[in-house]
Amino acid sequence: MKTDAVGFRLAKQADLPAIVRMLADDELGSQRERYEEPLPESYTAAFDQIERDSNHELIVAELNGEVIGTLHLMFLPSLSFQGGLRAQIESVRVDKLYQGQGIGSDMMKWAIERSQKRGAHVVQLTTHQSRADAHRFYERLGFKGTHLGMKLSLK
Amino acid sequence: MKTDAVGFRLAKQADLPAIVRMLADDELGSQRERYEEPLPESYTAAFDQIERDSNHELIVAELNGEVIGTLHLMFLPSLSFQGGLRAQIESVRVDKLYQGQGIGSDMMKWAIERSQKRGAHVVQLTTHQSRADAHRFYERLGFKGTHLGMKLSLK
Repeated sequence: MKTDAVGFRLAKQADLPAIVRMLADDELGSQRERYEEPLPESYTAAFDQIERDSNHELIVAELNGEVIGTLHLMFLPSLSFQGGLRAQIESVRVDKLYQGQGIGSDMMKWAIERSQKRGAHVVQLTTHQSRADAHRFYERLGFKGTHLGMKLSLK
Repeated sequence: MKTDAVGFRLAKQADLPAIVRMLADDELGSQRERYEEPLPESYTAAFDQIERDSNHELIVAELNGEVIGTLHLMFLPSLSFQGGLRAQIESVRVDKLYQGQGIGSDMMKWAIERSQKRGAHVVQLTTHQSRADAHRFYERLGFKGTHLGMKLSLK
């Protein structure tokens, strides 16, 4: 398979099952997602909110008409850094069948370029401390692990 | 001074100089902000964007009509966690003259309660690895440092 045949674009509602399947197909994701037919309505509701908001872009990687990767890119207006726009990336996944071929890296570079064009001064993300492979992956893309990511669960 | 005299509310444009002063009055902030009269226009532009977006809330703590604390609370629609809403907090500051009196803690609790009412399943934030005091402060509020926060500077 040639990586350059992979395209990146904004997600459509029809892509939702493929995206949720990838979110669920993961050690941490399997504990918190529900990939079933039909999809729980909460996914569609969240998709609608994301699609309506010009500061949110749900991205998919596509190969021969099949969705094989995803990430959620968001733009966050902020006062800090002299009112500088931040880009943030969440929920990065590549289909397990297609991992190790540079698709995730190309998808991230595409999102980084998109952030740059939009005028963001930084791209930020967090990854679970346990995902050592992910840390190396992002370091190779130029990210620096300067911050501690903290979470408070409300449920 | 009694902490219970401190009130929390959404910021108004007139609060902007006080907020930027606090963002700048800090070891890391002083390197990247410009607190001057008049304020650089980029701050006002960012404030307008934040104010127009119902997923963003710039919060201030007020004591006797004076702004002495701030944080930026944002709500992020997301597909993960079954389409669960995330709350995120950035740019937390308390005026140096009023630190150590529980004001930051009360302001955070107020923001956490607001996130809960809005239906967020998590509150997330990142702090620079060098801010050991901040880590302890957030841990006391129940936050857990489960993630590595990574940044890629685009400027």
